[in-house]
Amino acid sequence: MIKNDNFTKWFDDLLLEANILDNRYPVKGFAVYKGWGSRIIKKIINILENELESTNHEPMMFPIVIPEDSFAKESDHIKGFNSEVFWITHAGKRLMSKKLLLRPTSETAIYPLFAYWIRSHADLPFKMHQTVSVYRYETRATRPLLRMREFIWNEAHTAHENWAEAEKQVEESVRIYTRVFECLALNYLVLKRPDFDKFAGAVFSIAFDAWNPDGRVNQIGTIHNLGDNFAKAFDITYEDTEGNHRNVIQTCYGLGLSRSLAALIAQHGDDHGLVIPPEIAPVQVVVVPITYKQINEEVKIYSREVYMVIKKMGLRVIIDDDEKTKSVDKFYKWERFGVPVRVEVGPKDLAKRCVTLSERIGLKRKIVRLDEVAYTIQELLTNITEHLRKKSQKNMQLMIIEANDLDSVKKIIMSRKIAKMSWCGRNECAEIIKAETRGGEIRGHRFDRKEKPQNRCAVCDQKAVKVVYIAKSY
Amino acid sequence: MIKNDNFTKWFDDLLLEANILDNRYPVKGFAVYKGWGSRIIKKIINILENELESTNHEPMMFPIVIPEDSFAKESDHIKGFNSEVFWITHAGKRLMSKKLLLRPTSETAIYPLFAYWIRSHADLPFKMHQTVSVYRYETRATRPLLRMREFIWNEAHTAHENWAEAEKQVEESVRIYTRVFECLALNYLVLKRPDFDKFAGAVFSIAFDAWNPDGRVNQIGTIHNLGDNFAKAFDITYEDTEGNHRNVIQTCYGLGLSRSLAALIAQHGDDHGLVIPPEIAPVQVVVVPITYKQINEEVKIYSREVYMVIKKMGLRVIIDDDEKTKSVDKFYKWERFGVPVRVEVGPKDLAKRCVTLSERIGLKRKIVRLDEVAYTIQELLTNITEHLRKKSQKNMQLMIIEANDLDSVKKIIMSRKIAKMSWCGRNECAEIIKAETRGGEIRGHRFDRKEKPQNRCAVCDQKAVKVVYIAKSY
Repeated sequence: MIKNDNFTKWFDDLLLEANILDNRYPVKGFAVYKGWGSRIIKKIINILENELESTNHEPMMFPIVIPEDSFAKESDHIKGFNSEVFWITHAGKRLMSKKLLLRPTSETAIYPLFAYWIRSHADLPFKMHQTVSVYRYETRATRPLLRMREFIWNEAHTAHENWAEAEKQVEESVRIYTRVFECLALNYLVLKRPDFDKFAGAVFSIAFDAWNPDGRVNQIGTIHNLGDNFAKAFDITYEDTEGNHRNVIQTCYGLGLSRSLAALIAQHGDDHGLVIPPEIAPVQVVVVPITYKQINEEVKIYSREVYMVIKKMGLRVIIDDDEKTKSVDKFYKWERFGVPVRVEVGPKDLAKRCVTLSERIGLKRKIVRLDEVAYTIQELLTNITEHLRKKSQKNMQLMIIEANDLDSVKKIIMSRKIAKMSWCGRNECAEIIKAETRGGEIRGHRFDRKEKPQNRCAVCDQKAVKVVYIAKSY
Repeated sequence: MIKNDNFTKWFDDLLLEANILDNRYPVKGFAVYKGWGSRIIKKIINILENELESTNHEPMMFPIVIPEDSFAKESDHIKGFNSEVFWITHAGKRLMSKKLLLRPTSETAIYPLFAYWIRSHADLPFKMHQTVSVYRYETRATRPLLRMREFIWNEAHTAHENWAEAEKQVEESVRIYTRVFECLALNYLVLKRPDFDKFAGAVFSIAFDAWNPDGRVNQIGTIHNLGDNFAKAFDITYEDTEGNHRNVIQTCYGLGLSRSLAALIAQHGDDHGLVIPPEIAPVQVVVVPITYKQINEEVKIYSREVYMVIKKMGLRVIIDDDEKTKSVDKFYKWERFGVPVRVEVGPKDLAKRCVTLSERIGLKRKIVRLDEVAYTIQELLTNITEHLRKKSQKNMQLMIIEANDLDSVKKIIMSRKIAKMSWCGRNECAEIIKAETRGGEIRGHRFDRKEKPQNRCAVCDQKAVKVVYIAKSY
C-alpha cells in the first residue's frame, strides 16, 4: 500500500482492509460501514453532538420521507434538487396517492413543523440538529465515502428574529465546526462560495473544503444563511415585542460524517494504514502479549497487569491475546487500523518489569518502566493531534499554488494541485476555467480572513474583486 | 391528564407536552421525535449497544435500500413482507432499471454480504448489529410510537456453525434484552410465538410482549432462530475443520426503540406526566432556585454551589434559572418531563444551608442539609428503578386473568385484560378466539418458564398442549 503511487487504489484498499467500508453492496452508490468505520464515525458524532447541544441545539429526529408538495414550496430549492431525488411511488402493490421522496437534505421536512412551533419572539432563537443519512441520485461517478448516493451527516437548522442574529449564528456554527475538525486534526479552506455555487434556496453559503492528496477538494461542511426565503415559503412567522408578525431569518448547516472520515483517512493515513487522532480512535492503546509460539502464563498475567494500569487512566485500551495469530501480524493489523499506541509485553519486558511502547505516527519503539507507562503514554497521546494537524497543514500549503494567468491555472489543476488567483467576479471567467481545466471550479474566497486581490483577473485581465481558490471537487 | 380516564388521550397529550414526539408531520405513520424523546431514545441505544458490543457484536451500518432481487430470494420472507414495503421506482425523472425498496427489516440487505465475509469455521460465530429506522406500510390504524410506518430499532444478526451454537445465541440474546429492559424497569411476557405468527423466514420466534394499560400488548423485542433458511437462499457457507462446505445456522433479533419508549411512558407515567428511571433520564436532577419575583443574588450563588455538589457526584444535573418562568411552573414542567429528583433552593434553605428535595415518584418533599445532599440523592436514585419495576410487575399480574372457556376469554379481552388459557395447539381455535374477541390473538406460551396445561383447550375442550396468553396487540 504505497499512498503516493496510486492514491485512489491505496484509499479503496485501506477501506476494506481496515474494516471501514465494504463497497460490494449490490446498489451503486450505497455501501456498508463495517465495525471500525462505524466506531470512528460514532466518535465523531459524539464530539459534534456535544458541541451542538452545549450551544443549545435540541436533538431531534425527522422522518426520512418528504411529501411532494412540501418539497415544491421553495422554488430555488426544488430547482436545485429535483433531478437528484429518489421517489417512492408504491407501497405494497398500491400506487400512492401522494408521492414521497427520500430527503436529499431536510429543509422541506423540518420547516412545516417550525411553522407550528414558532409563535413569538420568546420562541427565538430556535435551534435543532439531527444526525441522519441523506439521499442524492448522484450522476457523476460515485466514490466510496467521498461521493455516495447515501451519506451520513449532521444537519442543524435555526430560526432568528433578524438578520443580525442569523449572522451571529453563522459565526457560531463556524466555531462549532472548527472545534470538531480540530479534534480530527483536519486542514481545509473556509470559503464563501460564489453566487452560482450557493445552496439552492440560500442567500449565501460558506463551505469547509478539505484538501485531498489527489488535488481534489472534499467539502466536509457547509453553512448557509437562508434569509427569509424558506420562512416565506413555509409561512414561519413570529410576533415581535410590538405585536407585529414577521418572518424569521434562518440558517442551516451540515457536517458530512462520511466525508470527514474520508478526509481523516486521506490526510493522515500512510503506507502502513490509518493514522487516527486519539480523540477519535475507537481503541487508543492496544496491549500485545508476545508469547513465542507456546503460551507463557507469566507474560499473560503481566500483560493483564499492564492493561489494568492503562485502563485506570481512563483510556480506551484492549488486550489482543488471540493465540491463533502471530505477534508480528497483530502489529501490522493494529498499525493498519491506526491505533495510536501499541504496548508490547514479552518475557524480556517481564524480567525487567518494563514494556515496549510503539507509537503509530513515527513507528518508533522505546522501552519504558511499568511505573512510567502511564506518564509516557499520556505524553505520547497529548502530542499526536497537534503533530498531525501541523503535518497536514504543511501538505495543504504545499498544494496551494498562485497563478496569474489561465495557462498557470490549467497547469496547476492538471498537476493535481489547488490554484489561487485573482478573479473579476464574472461567471464567464468561471466557465472558461472549468472548460480549460476539465472540471476545475472556483470554490470561493476565504471567509476566515481577508485577502485583497493584488493582480487583475487571471482569465480576462479585468479588474479583480476577489482572491479565489480553484480545484476539482468530489 | 388523568391516565386511567382515557389512556389514549393521556398518552398522546403527554407525547406533545413532554417534548417526546410531534405527530403533525404531513405523512401518515411518520412523526418527529423532539428533544426530550430523542434524548431518552439515545440513552436506551447506549445501554443496548454497550451490551451488544461487550458480547462481541460488531457495530455496522447497512444501506436503507434493498434491490428487488435480493428481497425475493427467501420465499417465506417475501410472502410475509411483500404487501407492506415502500418501493422506490424513480430517481429524478428517470425510471430506475432495478426497483429498490426501503428495508422493512434487513436480512435481505445484510446476508448477501455475509456470503462474502464468511469463509471458514474460523470466521464463526459472526455477530453484528445496527441501530436504524425501518419502514413498513402498516395498513392498520397507526399510533404514535406504538405503530408507525417508520420506526427506530436495533437489529442484530449472527451466523453459527451448527444448531446448538445458534440456540446458545438465542439464550444470550434473551439475556441481553432482559438486562436492557431491567434498566427501563419494564415488565413483559417472554413468549414463544405459535407457528402461524412466527417471523417470515424463521424456524421459530420468541417475543417480549410488554403490558399496556389499555390491555393491548406491545411487542418490544423479538428473537428468531432462522435455521439455514436464509443461508440456503443467500448461499452462505463455511468450510468446517474437515474441509466440508456447510450452510451456517443463523439467528437475528430486534429491539424496538420507539416501542420501548412507548412502554416506558405507558407503564410508569402518571397523572403528572412521565416517570423515568435514572439510568435513562436525560436529566437526573434539576436544581430550581426559588427567587420570589425579584432576583436574589445570594440564592443564585447558593444554587450554583448546590449544583456543583451534585455535578461532582457524576450525575446529569441542570440548573433551571430561567427568570421569565414562575417556580411553580418549573415544578410542573420537570414533573411532566419525569426528572427523578428536584432540588429547590430558596431563601429559607439558604439561611439554614439546606435544600428541599422532591422525588418524582411519590412527589414527597424533604429538607436536607447541604452536607447530606449527595448521600440522600444517591439513596433516592438507587431505589427508583427497583420500585418502578415492582409496581409495574404488580400491574401486569393484575392484568393477566385465567380463563377456562371461550366466554371467559371474550369477557377478559373485552374488559381490556390479558387472558391465560390452555390450548390444543390447533389454528382453528386461534381463529375462533380472534373472531369472537374482535382481534384477540394467541401470543404464545412462556419461553422463560415451563407452564403445563392443567385443563383442556378452553375453546374446543380437546387435550391441551400449551398454556398460552391472549391479547390484542399493537
